[in-house]
Amino acid sequence: MPHPNDPKLRAFIDVAPDSDFPIQNLPYGVFSTAAYPAPRVGVAIGDQILDLAVMEKDGLIDLSPAFGVFAHSSINAFMALGPKVWSKTRARISELLRHDNPHLRDNKELRSRALVPMREAKLHLPVAVSGYTDFYSSKEHATNVGVMFRGKDNALQPNWLHMPIAYNGRASTVVVSGTTIRRPRGQLKPPNVEVPSFAPCKRLDFELEMGVVVGQSSPMGGMLSEKQAEEMIFGFVLLNDWSARDIQQWEYVPLGPFLAKAFATSISPWVVTREALEPFCVPGPEQNPTPLDYLRQTRPHNYDLELDVSLRAAQMKEPATICHTNFRYMYWSSVQQLMHHASSGCAMNVGDLLGSGTISGPEKHQRGSLLEISWNGSEPVELPGGIRRSFLEDGDSLVMRGWCQGDGYRVGFGEAEGTILPAE
Amino acid sequence: MPHPNDPKLRAFIDVAPDSDFPIQNLPYGVFSTAAYPAPRVGVAIGDQILDLAVMEKDGLIDLSPAFGVFAHSSINAFMALGPKVWSKTRARISELLRHDNPHLRDNKELRSRALVPMREAKLHLPVAVSGYTDFYSSKEHATNVGVMFRGKDNALQPNWLHMPIAYNGRASTVVVSGTTIRRPRGQLKPPNVEVPSFAPCKRLDFELEMGVVVGQSSPMGGMLSEKQAEEMIFGFVLLNDWSARDIQQWEYVPLGPFLAKAFATSISPWVVTREALEPFCVPGPEQNPTPLDYLRQTRPHNYDLELDVSLRAAQMKEPATICHTNFRYMYWSSVQQLMHHASSGCAMNVGDLLGSGTISGPEKHQRGSLLEISWNGSEPVELPGGIRRSFLEDGDSLVMRGWCQGDGYRVGFGEAEGTILPAE
Repeated sequence: MPHPNDPKLRAFIDVAPDSDFPIQNLPYGVFSTAAYPAPRVGVAIGDQILDLAVMEKDGLIDLSPAFGVFAHSSINAFMALGPKVWSKTRARISELLRHDNPHLRDNKELRSRALVPMREAKLHLPVAVSGYTDFYSSKEHATNVGVMFRGKDNALQPNWLHMPIAYNGRASTVVVSGTTIRRPRGQLKPPNVEVPSFAPCKRLDFELEMGVVVGQSSPMGGMLSEKQAEEMIFGFVLLNDWSARDIQQWEYVPLGPFLAKAFATSISPWVVTREALEPFCVPGPEQNPTPLDYLRQTRPHNYDLELDVSLRAAQMKEPATICHTNFRYMYWSSVQQLMHHASSGCAMNVGDLLGSGTISGPEKHQRGSLLEISWNGSEPVELPGGIRRSFLEDGDSLVMRGWCQGDGYRVGFGEAEGTILPAE
Repeated sequence: MPHPNDPKLRAFIDVAPDSDFPIQNLPYGVFSTAAYPAPRVGVAIGDQILDLAVMEKDGLIDLSPAFGVFAHSSINAFMALGPKVWSKTRARISELLRHDNPHLRDNKELRSRALVPMREAKLHLPVAVSGYTDFYSSKEHATNVGVMFRGKDNALQPNWLHMPIAYNGRASTVVVSGTTIRRPRGQLKPPNVEVPSFAPCKRLDFELEMGVVVGQSSPMGGMLSEKQAEEMIFGFVLLNDWSARDIQQWEYVPLGPFLAKAFATSISPWVVTREALEPFCVPGPEQNPTPLDYLRQTRPHNYDLELDVSLRAAQMKEPATICHTNFRYMYWSSVQQLMHHASSGCAMNVGDLLGSGTISGPEKHQRGSLLEISWNGSEPVELPGGIRRSFLEDGDSLVMRGWCQGDGYRVGFGEAEGTILPAE
């Protein structure tokens, strides 16, 4: 049987060459329909969703002794079954969707129950997020921010090259793409005023990140090897770490960002599996100094994954690209992030979400936040129609996209979109 | 019917005058027994536990239309029913336990099923912790730490008097009293060495805190009034925010504490309700400058709640008290913390846990961490038998206790204990 990543595979469903969801992808999500409003787990294929709850109920996918794990409002129960089941299930779904397999292809009644046009479906948050941790692992991003706030000579903090720096984020406000984002209020104290006021954020920003979805737990007090960490990673999503720069500036000393990041984090609805991304593995940047033993990796864990961000102001017809970068630039890999996270004995859970940190690249057009693009507001970005932006304004829609380009197909993520509503 | 807080009430069960659990308390916890190992919800009364799952099943407590909420491994389902049900249920439990109510008192068969000696029960983590946030709201603690690390003139950061500073903690490692604590490993880089090493923490500390258990949710994008915030608070626990000072020192710039606090947080097994603490409400310290409108409180929300910490090294027979302080000293109240937390639009969930921050007082014996007690290791604390401690050593057992002293009774919290195991 061909491997599900085989570039030669074709589905019996027509998939456009620029679709994010060819048979080589098969990402997991949670959806519902007007006809059947209970959220359940599905896989994206072209412009369709394969309803896995139907597949399992009809005996076409066998997870025994587990049963009913796809009739859930999150993929957590499926993830808990572990990497062998993930792999076996993906192979089975691939087999069911292949152009030369008549089983589903030629069964009209089954197809009508099992395949849902994506445009008729409502997509939900795919993961019940247990814990949300946000890293800071792009050297270009950390350097840009450091230069802006501390000058060129002290741009990187002394610990940065020794460990993947991170903080705990707020899991309760992780939302799926398409959820509107209310402009947050908070304490603002610009340097030129004496006392803070409580007002709507004036420097609202996005941060382009990837999110790792952890699919297995690890015990309190334990540590993780490279292999263990890798096998715990179920997949990846696009992640927008919305940030209120002015709230952050006043609140973050000495305990780090809190409310400036707690109001919303958007993720894409489809979780692309680690297995589907394997053909796109590439070495990351050279790490110098050599990481301590507990962070060493013997295989590449970066991905050649193109990312772009576009912005559409309310008065614009089409979105305009404001950033085009690549996930491969990350200094610390997701596997290193996970090894570090567990290293003090911190228990990891099924459903943990790890933000990569803002993904900037070496070039100016590769900056992954408006803070960097507009260089802290001093160089507003020019959009079509004479529109300029230093930070996000009410009515702005921000869209992130990501994909790995194969030979004649792409393994893509769909989008992570959010539109800004005025403060209440 | 007398109010359940009435000091004159007596239970039909003998309760010692120094017991933490008289009929005026009635804290909720989760327990199991050898005979019946499924965890369920109970209330502490003297040295007994009243099994609420039995009470509800037998129709003595009526939560309809809800049913079966006490046959759970956490109190979350009960908390979700809201403050009116909390109050009504506590009044009903009080009525059932009163010395002059024969219903349970004289029903030997029912008593044998419904009352479990505490010494025969295993106590579990009472709350399924949704999110864990740790505040920093004792002015004395923040000042002590500031003086140590930045000198007297810059002790308090400029934002500290304007908002309850906090960071997101790690929910996955909140454990119940009695759970052993493995000494964490991490990156250490003392100022006198060039490069960090990965090694067991050498400066392991406790932090004496109270934890607020949030019993109701609030929507993303919303804010909370004083009354709304107050009514969302179900109750309080003792909380030990174990801290690896050396890991923290190297990792925390610029995003705050992460692994230094992620390895363990211990809480007491009994959640004392806000209602039971009401008679002990006292005004907090004067707040100057006046807080911004969104943080104003019109009623006192501090508590006269005595706290003490004792340490027993492996070679000691009896624990020795190393701190005696009071929750009343907190500069920011729990209600203000919750109003601040939601103010940016951060959704709160049933089961959120808010650490108060280390509770120090104005006197030297009121310092709530070894960092402060030993003044960063320069003044080790002297224990009986010539034992000295700057930080915690393997085998040390640390016990926190807390209680409100009434006239002839106390509303207490039991204890939050943890014993240090060597690093693996």
